[in-house]
Amino acid sequence: MKSHSFNVHSPLKKEKVQDPPIEHDLYVTLEEIYHGCVKKMKISRRVLQPDGTSKKEDKCVSISIKPGWKSGTKVTFQKEGDQTKGKIPADIVFIIRDKPHVWFRREGSDLRYTARLTLKQALCGVIFEVPTMTGEKLRISTKQEIIKPNTVKRIQGYGLPFPKEPSRKGDLLVAFDIKFPDKLSTSEKEMLNDMLPNS
Amino acid sequence: MKSHSFNVHSPLKKEKVQDPPIEHDLYVTLEEIYHGCVKKMKISRRVLQPDGTSKKEDKCVSISIKPGWKSGTKVTFQKEGDQTKGKIPADIVFIIRDKPHVWFRREGSDLRYTARLTLKQALCGVIFEVPTMTGEKLRISTKQEIIKPNTVKRIQGYGLPFPKEPSRKGDLLVAFDIKFPDKLSTSEKEMLNDMLPNS
Repeated sequence: MKSHSFNVHSPLKKEKVQDPPIEHDLYVTLEEIYHGCVKKMKISRRVLQPDGTSKKEDKCVSISIKPGWKSGTKVTFQKEGDQTKGKIPADIVFIIRDKPHVWFRREGSDLRYTARLTLKQALCGVIFEVPTMTGEKLRISTKQEIIKPNTVKRIQGYGLPFPKEPSRKGDLLVAFDIKFPDKLSTSEKEMLNDMLPNS
Repeated sequence: MKSHSFNVHSPLKKEKVQDPPIEHDLYVTLEEIYHGCVKKMKISRRVLQPDGTSKKEDKCVSISIKPGWKSGTKVTFQKEGDQTKGKIPADIVFIIRDKPHVWFRREGSDLRYTARLTLKQALCGVIFEVPTMTGEKLRISTKQEIIKPNTVKRIQGYGLPFPKEPSRKGDLLVAFDIKFPDKLSTSEKEMLNDMLPNS
């Protein structure tokens, strides 16, 4: 056994070595991160029997995911790997990962939403709704301003909870994807050419 | 001396240890990468004298930078560090780094140029010039198309040389930064609203 090689000077005391940790990705939705949740996971491992053989057994573990946890957070269950004679079972590690969301992309504790506007809406103004994590819809009016390709609106407090202070929340960033027309007629171009500023 | 500890069983034969490499960043322009160049660098190090003392000496080394070398390329001068009795001098390593360029950003063997257009130019068409590494200016006409915020034009062969085949070159990517008007009057908005498509 490998552990012997470390103990050539003290053959009576065997130091056990541990297998390297076994890591699993655990994908969670932004909703689960927002509210926090408990995930039950099944661990399968070989368990040593009194007669010296080992038998495959399943075990359920609960992972309590706290509001606002970052992607990459590790939850370790110590020594829950396969049991082998003379060795310490490996640690089982779950690594929190973000499931892609249909509307939002995570940026730390902020969320980014991209609103699709036509060029007409960007220039002439529009009222549109922005979804939030709570289901509430925020009405945004751009009647008083021109939305530019790099415009980002920051709506405070509609992001994800701060992990160390879950009552406070990050921001909801609203970015814009502006759809230009695919074609314009010669007369339309002439009108735009007369109307739009040169700088 | 540290080297002794490795040789307790063979005191007659000393194995020398080497100091860790000394790394210097070497910033080069895209022009130097494009054409290749030779950089002369001064190395200062302590040199052992016959009487056992050491003296600071300068030495010039030439670094031949080949066309297309990537940022991060390392050039090593072996054992050119300080000379110390009983030790192997450190290697001196120069790491090629890109100097920021006024027009271009490097993307592998491609170069990216961002053209600034007004919204009028993007919609109605414009003829503009794109600089190149050779000084040649490329005339680009967008009279037949509408430039959108994510439009990228790829001009083949105007990038940087491929390091392993310097006669071939990457591409010049032309991206666009479209300046929207800061204000529009109510009547201008009404005209745009009538003219621009709804989707």
